[in-house]
Amino acid sequence: MNFYQTLKGAWSDQNSLLCVGLDSVLDKLPASFRQSSTPLYDFNRAIIDATAKFVSSFKLQIAFYSSLGRESELEKSIHYIKERYPAIVVILDAKRSDIGNTSEAYAREAFERYRADAVTVNPYLGGDSLEPFLAWKDRGVIILCRTSNPGAGDLQDLECQGRKLYIHVAEMAANRWNKNENVSLVVGATYPQEIGEIRKVVGDKIAFLVPGIGAQGGDLKETVSRGKDSSGLGLMIHSARSIIYASSGDDFQEAAEREAKKLRDEINLYR
Amino acid sequence: MNFYQTLKGAWSDQNSLLCVGLDSVLDKLPASFRQSSTPLYDFNRAIIDATAKFVSSFKLQIAFYSSLGRESELEKSIHYIKERYPAIVVILDAKRSDIGNTSEAYAREAFERYRADAVTVNPYLGGDSLEPFLAWKDRGVIILCRTSNPGAGDLQDLECQGRKLYIHVAEMAANRWNKNENVSLVVGATYPQEIGEIRKVVGDKIAFLVPGIGAQGGDLKETVSRGKDSSGLGLMIHSARSIIYASSGDDFQEAAEREAKKLRDEINLYR
Repeated sequence: MNFYQTLKGAWSDQNSLLCVGLDSVLDKLPASFRQSSTPLYDFNRAIIDATAKFVSSFKLQIAFYSSLGRESELEKSIHYIKERYPAIVVILDAKRSDIGNTSEAYAREAFERYRADAVTVNPYLGGDSLEPFLAWKDRGVIILCRTSNPGAGDLQDLECQGRKLYIHVAEMAANRWNKNENVSLVVGATYPQEIGEIRKVVGDKIAFLVPGIGAQGGDLKETVSRGKDSSGLGLMIHSARSIIYASSGDDFQEAAEREAKKLRDEINLYR
Repeated sequence: MNFYQTLKGAWSDQNSLLCVGLDSVLDKLPASFRQSSTPLYDFNRAIIDATAKFVSSFKLQIAFYSSLGRESELEKSIHYIKERYPAIVVILDAKRSDIGNTSEAYAREAFERYRADAVTVNPYLGGDSLEPFLAWKDRGVIILCRTSNPGAGDLQDLECQGRKLYIHVAEMAANRWNKNENVSLVVGATYPQEIGEIRKVVGDKIAFLVPGIGAQGGDLKETVSRGKDSSGLGLMIHSARSIIYASSGDDFQEAAEREAKKLRDEINLYR
């Protein structure tokens, strides 16, 4: 089964396009977790159990673990999702890229060591830097295309041979890199017009991981209606802080569950 | 002291522009290391001691450790260099990039956890993604510009608003991102003409990390003569395999020392 089929299964089984980001950082956790020796893992489990019913994917940001030497909590969190909720896709947000045998090592880091279903990668080094990831047919390779940050345009908006750089990336993704139907693109919700434009370029069969809803100010209705594919699917709408930190009190699980359900339902309304 | 001053000190103290890459992978180590519980660290120490006299920097590729869960051997290798050879610059090759607090976490990973003097980063996300790295004035931020791989041109060679994408990166590096004099660029030796062109764009004060000599076929004389700055400095000429695996027998240290000295001397001849 290629990754796109896996994604379609998750969207349909879970009736959700929501991706909850487990962006867990120590100083934002409810006080009760701070005494634990595995606070990130413990908090993640609580959020996973509270929100699993409403998501088709979870995304984990490796920097929040590797900066602290807490890789084992990342491994355990992914293992927990895969054991308990096998229908849910696990995305490792690592934005890796390198060449040759180094890219091979990064692919093994994501897919073997962490057992992620998909990993985010950076296209600046070109197609051959992505090949070692793309060769894993059953795993997803989510390529940065149009990111949600203020400085995204420094390179991505440059007009290159008739169209913007991020359009070139979208075209290469659709025409060259998606032979195994395992490519997705990162397209920020802060630019809904661009989402529609990129959807026209790539057609169906390429999903978008969409950060920037909520805290970063992206418009959900515009994002979903312009970004969805012809079946009303094709999106992994990412939200982290507004769900996982919805409450810092003892009711943080109920609050996360409520916010996840609310966002899932709102997305479904627009697709 | 900003990073550029640190680099100048290392070039001058060591009379060398050579950067040896500790690209240590298990199945290439001499047989005697395979029984160790820390084979990468043990091999690295042997290579470091054999070549330190002839290098101004060592580069360690994080993927070769993180793919195996061997981060502790990376930490120990860097610690070893910093304790024994404080004049030598340590580069963590991680090609990181992300936004906001994630970039901050990656900067802490490189500079606090691993205590690297410099880290490689990817510019695709734009200037704000680099800020959290650039804020560490005494550490180096080595930005991918023109890489040495066959597919490098997919994005980097696109003609964007009158010049190639990698030239835009070089211009932004020189004009916007180098306020703390801690920016360097990755420029592959496989494109000597581009090295000269980029040197003209950035002037002095930006060093180049140059992979692609040796195994990848880059021409050393052309690379050095076109890439050096006006003082005959400005380069970190990288070589890994042809030095660290110069012999797989018991004489691997002597062979590595001989190859490092030879390459150091050849570089000095051309600068």
